[in-house]
Amino acid sequence: MSIIGSGLRLVALTLTSLLWSVTVLAGEVLPSWQDGAAKNAIVAFVNNVTRESSDGYVPPAERIATFDNDGTLWAEQPVYFQAFFAMARLREMAPEHPEWAREEPFKSALAGDMKALMASGMEGVMKILMASHAGVTGDAFHSEVSDWLQASRHPDTGRPFTQMAYQPMLELLDYLRSNGFKVFIVSGGGIDFIRAFSEPLYGIPPEQVVGTTLEAHFEMRDGVPVIVRDAGISLIDDKAGKPVGIYRHIGRRPIFAAGNSDGDLQMLQYTTMPRDAGDTRPRLGLILHHTDAEREYAYDHGSHVGGLDQALDEAPQRGWVVVDMKKDWRRIFPE
Amino acid sequence: MSIIGSGLRLVALTLTSLLWSVTVLAGEVLPSWQDGAAKNAIVAFVNNVTRESSDGYVPPAERIATFDNDGTLWAEQPVYFQAFFAMARLREMAPEHPEWAREEPFKSALAGDMKALMASGMEGVMKILMASHAGVTGDAFHSEVSDWLQASRHPDTGRPFTQMAYQPMLELLDYLRSNGFKVFIVSGGGIDFIRAFSEPLYGIPPEQVVGTTLEAHFEMRDGVPVIVRDAGISLIDDKAGKPVGIYRHIGRRPIFAAGNSDGDLQMLQYTTMPRDAGDTRPRLGLILHHTDAEREYAYDHGSHVGGLDQALDEAPQRGWVVVDMKKDWRRIFPE
Repeated sequence: MSIIGSGLRLVALTLTSLLWSVTVLAGEVLPSWQDGAAKNAIVAFVNNVTRESSDGYVPPAERIATFDNDGTLWAEQPVYFQAFFAMARLREMAPEHPEWAREEPFKSALAGDMKALMASGMEGVMKILMASHAGVTGDAFHSEVSDWLQASRHPDTGRPFTQMAYQPMLELLDYLRSNGFKVFIVSGGGIDFIRAFSEPLYGIPPEQVVGTTLEAHFEMRDGVPVIVRDAGISLIDDKAGKPVGIYRHIGRRPIFAAGNSDGDLQMLQYTTMPRDAGDTRPRLGLILHHTDAEREYAYDHGSHVGGLDQALDEAPQRGWVVVDMKKDWRRIFPE
Repeated sequence: MSIIGSGLRLVALTLTSLLWSVTVLAGEVLPSWQDGAAKNAIVAFVNNVTRESSDGYVPPAERIATFDNDGTLWAEQPVYFQAFFAMARLREMAPEHPEWAREEPFKSALAGDMKALMASGMEGVMKILMASHAGVTGDAFHSEVSDWLQASRHPDTGRPFTQMAYQPMLELLDYLRSNGFKVFIVSGGGIDFIRAFSEPLYGIPPEQVVGTTLEAHFEMRDGVPVIVRDAGISLIDDKAGKPVGIYRHIGRRPIFAAGNSDGDLQMLQYTTMPRDAGDTRPRLGLILHHTDAEREYAYDHGSHVGGLDQALDEAPQRGWVVVDMKKDWRRIFPE
């Protein structure tokens, strides 16, 4: 082989390995996402805010991303998983409450009659919530949720509930964090319910969870200082309550928000619509559209859980990225 | 020089440079703290929780430290600095409120008559607080506080208020962070007041500030989504409210807490008294005792601002470290 030939071969080899590296690198980012508009929009946004030479550069401290939980990070059908916990907790407590056998909404809840329970309306749901979530110390509640998560399975899939987190979203959390984002959960679900699993499941520590919050008080019990959860609500972290939760807990406006229902509408608006004309930071809103009845569930308009109406209608004009779970995701759940 | 002589010289040199390194290192830790019991207790605690071989090792995620603000991170005499802001804000608003010239507590507040204002009691203070802190957007309030901090000076020292942070405490914040701690403010002061300066002054981002919190709501103003601060209180983050604020915002028990008044008593108890007999993590409670009338102020029992009674009395039995500011601090304020 001539020197020129050998040189050309070296160039060819270098090019090949370079192309291979690029492919591997591209493959490493969000591997469970199909190549397409949604993935491209996410990657372009992240590149834009992280490149110091970019017009859209945002310093790391201001890279705040907020994620809804139910239906966005893990599944939410046939009902919010927290409702399964509440039912289990009521069954556990029932022997001490013989009156529940006759009293609604407890009677229906103990019988697992979800339809009758829903018919009891907000008042009924609140009674169930308070009976199952209040009146215990913070530490005891944390243990109850942890124990239930260990012992319970999803009625449709037979999986532990924590195995119903979405693999592509776990990758998205990692991708954002590896690009200097601080990632928060902002959920209509109970803040302390989510805190019992957010760190091992999502890598999100308790102090980065915002959610519906009960009143609580401090007391000394046998010389031990404890927090006791009270039967009153401090924040309903849903719909217009989500930006309030963000203001209370985070204190600055996110530049990225992801949700899947009208419960996330105001969080998406608050995140993606600039404060004033001078705020030119890039902002990304993302809506998961549940379109995959085979691998997960398909629902949107009018669904009693995770209803998606106004937010889906506003998405085009607001520039929100709509993720079609059937088309955009290679897989739904972890192996 | 013989080989042995040269070898000995090398050993001597190595020893010298080693000793020098140790001295420099020791000097670099908390340089504004006098060597003594308080500094030793802090350094021993940090070494204990950070050394993986130590019985007291605590993983970084659980190294939560909480600091009171007024009187702990910056001064609080002759009154809480937030009160100066409230007065300034009222004077700014007064032209739109001619009725305040006749109406208490506004009349006294505008005249700067602090004594008459205090006589108006909690009800009066709340009226001043709501008039000066509510009814504006979150963004507008943030700007108002920032502008005031730029323009105002402390009446006794003539310094900008941000120059009345305590140099030894700034070093302590850095020292804890460099040892993997996540540092929070937990203050009776207004959460959004503190957030206007906590990041540049203390390196504490807004999401790590807990404080007294107003109600708020979300609305669209001319197509711009905003948070509006309402005239109601969501949390009084003082005394027994501090552990509640910690539970709401942080969701786990700190292992380190610092305060200077009875407003911090329950936070110190909650932090340093283990959950149950099985919890053997090291815990440190620290009380700043204002003992230096020359360089700062001297006050404790019965002071109307930063009163320190029960917490000082409980300190010995609870093992809390009491910092004598006169003896333990080489300097008070930054140069």
